[in-house]
Amino acid sequence: MSGIWGSNYKLSIFGESHGKAIGMVLNGLPVGIELDMEQISKEMERRAPGRDNLSTPRVEGDQFEIVSGILDDTTTGAPLCSMIWNSSQRSKDYSHIRYVMRPGHADYPGFVKYKGFNDYRGGGHFSGRITAPVVFAGAVAKQILARKGITVGAHIKSIGSVSEESFDAVNLNAETLLELAKKPFPVIDESAGEAMKQVILEAKEELDSVGGTVEVGVTGIPVGIGDPFFDSVESKIASLVFSVPGTKGLEFGAGFAISDMKGSESNDEYYMDGDAVKTYTNNNGGITGGISNGMPIVYSVAIKPTSSISKKQRTIDVKEQSETELEVHGRHDPCIVHRTVPVLEAITAIAILDLMLGTEGASGFEPR
Amino acid sequence: MSGIWGSNYKLSIFGESHGKAIGMVLNGLPVGIELDMEQISKEMERRAPGRDNLSTPRVEGDQFEIVSGILDDTTTGAPLCSMIWNSSQRSKDYSHIRYVMRPGHADYPGFVKYKGFNDYRGGGHFSGRITAPVVFAGAVAKQILARKGITVGAHIKSIGSVSEESFDAVNLNAETLLELAKKPFPVIDESAGEAMKQVILEAKEELDSVGGTVEVGVTGIPVGIGDPFFDSVESKIASLVFSVPGTKGLEFGAGFAISDMKGSESNDEYYMDGDAVKTYTNNNGGITGGISNGMPIVYSVAIKPTSSISKKQRTIDVKEQSETELEVHGRHDPCIVHRTVPVLEAITAIAILDLMLGTEGASGFEPR
Amino acid sequence: MSGIWGSNYKLSIFGESHGKAIGMVLNGLPVGIELDMEQISKEMERRAPGRDNLSTPRVEGDQFEIVSGILDDTTTGAPLCSMIWNSSQRSKDYSHIRYVMRPGHADYPGFVKYKGFNDYRGGGHFSGRITAPVVFAGAVAKQILARKGITVGAHIKSIGSVSEESFDAVNLNAETLLELAKKPFPVIDESAGEAMKQVILEAKEELDSVGGTVEVGVTGIPVGIGDPFFDSVESKIASLVFSVPGTKGLEFGAGFAISDMKGSESNDEYYMDGDAVKTYTNNNGGITGGISNGMPIVYSVAIKPTSSISKKQRTIDVKEQSETELEVHGRHDPCIVHRTVPVLEAITAIAILDLMLGTEGASGFEPR
Amino acid sequence: MSGIWGSNYKLSIFGESHGKAIGMVLNGLPVGIELDMEQISKEMERRAPGRDNLSTPRVEGDQFEIVSGILDDTTTGAPLCSMIWNSSQRSKDYSHIRYVMRPGHADYPGFVKYKGFNDYRGGGHFSGRITAPVVFAGAVAKQILARKGITVGAHIKSIGSVSEESFDAVNLNAETLLELAKKPFPVIDESAGEAMKQVILEAKEELDSVGGTVEVGVTGIPVGIGDPFFDSVESKIASLVFSVPGTKGLEFGAGFAISDMKGSESNDEYYMDGDAVKTYTNNNGGITGGISNGMPIVYSVAIKPTSSISKKQRTIDVKEQSETELEVHGRHDPCIVHRTVPVLEAITAIAILDLMLGTEGASGFEPR
Repeated sequence: MSGIWGSNYKLSIFGESHGKAIGMVLNGLPVGIELDMEQISKEMERRAPGRDNLSTPRVEGDQFEIVSGILDDTTTGAPLCSMIWNSSQRSKDYSHIRYVMRPGHADYPGFVKYKGFNDYRGGGHFSGRITAPVVFAGAVAKQILARKGITVGAHIKSIGSVSEESFDAVNLNAETLLELAKKPFPVIDESAGEAMKQVILEAKEELDSVGGTVEVGVTGIPVGIGDPFFDSVESKIASLVFSVPGTKGLEFGAGFAISDMKGSESNDEYYMDGDAVKTYTNNNGGITGGISNGMPIVYSVAIKPTSSISKKQRTIDVKEQSETELEVHGRHDPCIVHRTVPVLEAITAIAILDLMLGTEGASGFEPR
Repeated sequence: MSGIWGSNYKLSIFGESHGKAIGMVLNGLPVGIELDMEQISKEMERRAPGRDNLSTPRVEGDQFEIVSGILDDTTTGAPLCSMIWNSSQRSKDYSHIRYVMRPGHADYPGFVKYKGFNDYRGGGHFSGRITAPVVFAGAVAKQILARKGITVGAHIKSIGSVSEESFDAVNLNAETLLELAKKPFPVIDESAGEAMKQVILEAKEELDSVGGTVEVGVTGIPVGIGDPFFDSVESKIASLVFSVPGTKGLEFGAGFAISDMKGSESNDEYYMDGDAVKTYTNNNGGITGGISNGMPIVYSVAIKPTSSISKKQRTIDVKEQSETELEVHGRHDPCIVHRTVPVLEAITAIAILDLMLGTEGASGFEPR
Repeated sequence: MSGIWGSNYKLSIFGESHGKAIGMVLNGLPVGIELDMEQISKEMERRAPGRDNLSTPRVEGDQFEIVSGILDDTTTGAPLCSMIWNSSQRSKDYSHIRYVMRPGHADYPGFVKYKGFNDYRGGGHFSGRITAPVVFAGAVAKQILARKGITVGAHIKSIGSVSEESFDAVNLNAETLLELAKKPFPVIDESAGEAMKQVILEAKEELDSVGGTVEVGVTGIPVGIGDPFFDSVESKIASLVFSVPGTKGLEFGAGFAISDMKGSESNDEYYMDGDAVKTYTNNNGGITGGISNGMPIVYSVAIKPTSSISKKQRTIDVKEQSETELEVHGRHDPCIVHRTVPVLEAITAIAILDLMLGTEGASGFEPR
Repeated sequence: MSGIWGSNYKLSIFGESHGKAIGMVLNGLPVGIELDMEQISKEMERRAPGRDNLSTPRVEGDQFEIVSGILDDTTTGAPLCSMIWNSSQRSKDYSHIRYVMRPGHADYPGFVKYKGFNDYRGGGHFSGRITAPVVFAGAVAKQILARKGITVGAHIKSIGSVSEESFDAVNLNAETLLELAKKPFPVIDESAGEAMKQVILEAKEELDSVGGTVEVGVTGIPVGIGDPFFDSVESKIASLVFSVPGTKGLEFGAGFAISDMKGSESNDEYYMDGDAVKTYTNNNGGITGGISNGMPIVYSVAIKPTSSISKKQRTIDVKEQSETELEVHGRHDPCIVHRTVPVLEAITAIAILDLMLGTEGASGFEPR
């Protein structure tokens, strides 16, 4: 199992849902970068559970403790380790289902892969909780990218069958993205947002869960980030998107709709906007040949309904090797889509910074 | 620029469309594996152009020459280098458009990134032609996986708005996949296939191009392949899917449709089929928590229309820094979807073998 | 800066001498391995300072706290994070010499590289203290290797000009190595050891320091570990040996003396010892062509005198850009050779396990 | 087996002594670097055999053919593949000793590791011939480093028991290094060189072989290259030194002699030389704490006698599992030390460029 990602901005994550702590180590940070710790806390808070009736009532806190790599709030160049201690360890909730495999979860493949030795409590290392350190790493990346004028943001595009408008991929600007980040339930159209919340509350009432889609945007990206083939911007982002628990689909720009276009439609034609090169359309989502073309990067992600539901489900008991039924009562998120928004922003910032550090080197980022 | 991929089955690709040759080097091959060279040739042939009126009339051959790593058709354990010599170098076709950026192509971001030094002839290293060595590496991987009873296959799910049925994700079997591989235009339903071809020929006549979708399936996959987070099966496949030129969307299992399900629908419930563990549905595409659960792996890819079209397009001249128009007459594929099928099969085999070698080690694969 | 090492047994270290904690994250551990925590503590204790009058009187403790990856003392397959909290933070000792570069230390190149932002307190991330988590990772690796009958050990070959006999490279056995590990000052010949200690105490009295050499041995190693060229056993070990602070020389087998042999002497001729293949001599230190040949692996390392001395030294002040003198009074090790012994054993175990996991895979190591 | 090295300047080597060709692929090259092809040829020529009576009479040529990544002699940013075709394939020389293991060679560990499937002809992939593509990669690296004022060079320090003076580690300059590179038998003192040659010729006459030591120097290196711990300059160089066939020892600066110094002697004290920071001595070989300190980098390597000798040797037959004797008549180098000189220069340039690209990024190297 490898919890390490990155060629230049290297992220190593660790921890279990019901262990002592979760955390991460970052290597490759440019030196002399003064970090706004409050801003990082805010990002952590966006992902944290228990903020409203749409999420699990657990209060995990998600306060981070920086252990190394920082002096006077400034990066020293040494590996940055940040810990998030687990305060709410209620292991007993899970012990009785050790051998009863929860559908939709990693329980069964994990049991086979780890020969029964994996930490089964609360999903263990598979828990969505492990995205908290990823948000930390992304919050740091965002601050570094901001110095280059790059902004990452996202909104909930749909919950169940209720959707709202997509980003204007051609004219997307930083203000829109920053405005969304302030919202606990980030949508462009508040009335659509209310309808989405209604869908979540209905699922909750039914002891069920619901999924949705998130759209991510990046503005201010320079031309020339990414490489053809294996290190394409899309490949980098995709490898991280599908590391986020619950993701099942990903599309850049026009995405699947591009498969029903003609080349004369899908090709984004160029024009000069003063000295700047722009495209009339942005079906390629800001990336052609794997490399950023200067237009906003836009992509969407499909997130499945939370696997943890309280409804009765058919499953198996791996110890007895027999069929059984499962009813999990406890604290579940009826929907994780809004909590996944900051995670997707985080991994986007991480992917882009990793690519930029490859081209510009750590010394391409000026101290303070 | 990094043309290297893989943790265990390491692939290094090189070459330009109009250079001397393209090729690849493979590290991490198990030793003593006797390769069926004819089978590799057949895979190469499936991707090669010029086989019918649906593709560019160029005849590139795509005959490979193994330079190292093989003795008596058997892997020696040393790096395997395979070359594909470029026979048809008609560089003059491209020289006049050196500074005129083709929309939809890597021309413009490549020009900026490589400061004008990149090989501009026929797309250079960005050319789709570089997928030929990937097909080679995939053909080798397929043969190794076949020894473990794993089969990879794919079909064209749609061209433009014409689509055919999807795979039966629950009951998909190897025979279906192997049967498809024999077809030059791999579809399940031949009459749908005829309609698709019609769409391609119409686009060709209009000097335009058209896209489509491909669905990939894997059978015989053991439970427990892949890791949570960064090395999830989805992450591995996704990073390679988005390395293939022209891909803009990817979904596993139910994909985007899962975002409109309830948890009680999307969770694939388990049952015992004799001694085997199976799921009633396969909305997760054979992967839960990033790890294979033993059900067939199924995913779909959106492929954009070929960027090279003969229709007049608006663009810019980077030397003059001015707007201009572009009309490219030449040998273009009106559609690359059917030629992408073997490429997607190849990258799937590569991704899975890479993960399996991590778990089982090179010594997990018996000689001969 | 990259604090990450390894292809299969991946080690990520972090921390500063005077920060909150130092620690490490391990990825790639086989699952189901029950660890003897007391044994790990003993290894940590061997490296820890303050055990006798030969070392700095600081009492750091070096008690580790496992944060993740372990359940019931058994590896779960998830990343293992272990922390060592810094109890003895006396930062004031160092602040007045922030800009006065200590000769022999990383101060000056570190100041330039990190633009003055590095943690200067006690050497910060450069401190030899960062080898403590390496010893932890090595202690785990040793326990895993022991299951395959592989033993790693070492002795002090010399301190200053006082040396003792070398290992018998042909007949080295596990007992010798395990016996040495029990000694606080590991030498084969105790009287030579006493003379060595005398050299250290004399240097201490003179406010000076002294170096030495360590010889490492590995028994029970199977034939075929390692790869030619970049992943040779020697390359793997060497990259880690020169990561250990203070190392300046490394030789395998006969080492530099082999340069004055004839081929007919240096070639280790083979013979059959029953069914086993052995060599009459072991000038190659158990490795030919980069691969283990089944004979004991034997190598020696030169360790320089501790850079921290209390004697007056000429140096520069980087703030004033002028010459100055430096007298550092404080707690220094007059010699680090004996404390480096467990570190070299640790990195040897790490290197070998990393190579073995590549060949055999994580599944090559049976649970419990 | 992994024939891939590097984090930023990534080198992938392939080929067998008696296969079709050997070669390499380079990733991570800065773009727009015009290469002096003649200079590369000269470097290749320095390593090539058959130039005088000190080497094997085989004439391999070692002419390279660049296959990709270069346009108008200038790097395009795409992977650079270079091939060296094997013209002199006399496989019959080796076939009769397939199962008779040559002492000192990789034959036996290779046979076990690769289960008898490795290419046994002429050492196959283990052959020293595989250093030719390494020299190519180093020649490219040298030209890039030269733009930054960095020079790499080396001399033969000893052959058998005949040695010459070492470099003046404090005052070493580029002129000395460049002058040495012009010599077919690079020594500082020609009369010592004549005595060394005599030692080689005597060994040749005795059907035996002889070893020696090489000292490498680097001038013009900026302060701050390398990282503490795993990516120390010493670690990077060491991992490559021990990839070169026949190396058994390595020391930086004073090397093993430093183990008998006092700290007050071994610490290199700083002084100001105008604006520049220098050290009075250079016992640390230009590297403290793993990072370059601006003084010349100096290191020495012990090279064993050529393993291939014509004298009768005792060995085993792995097919018969019995003891036997071996007399190899053929074309052997009585000494490979002088041919290893350009290889060690090459790997030094590769290691340093890899580290510099990490810090400065590919964009830190200006085109042309």
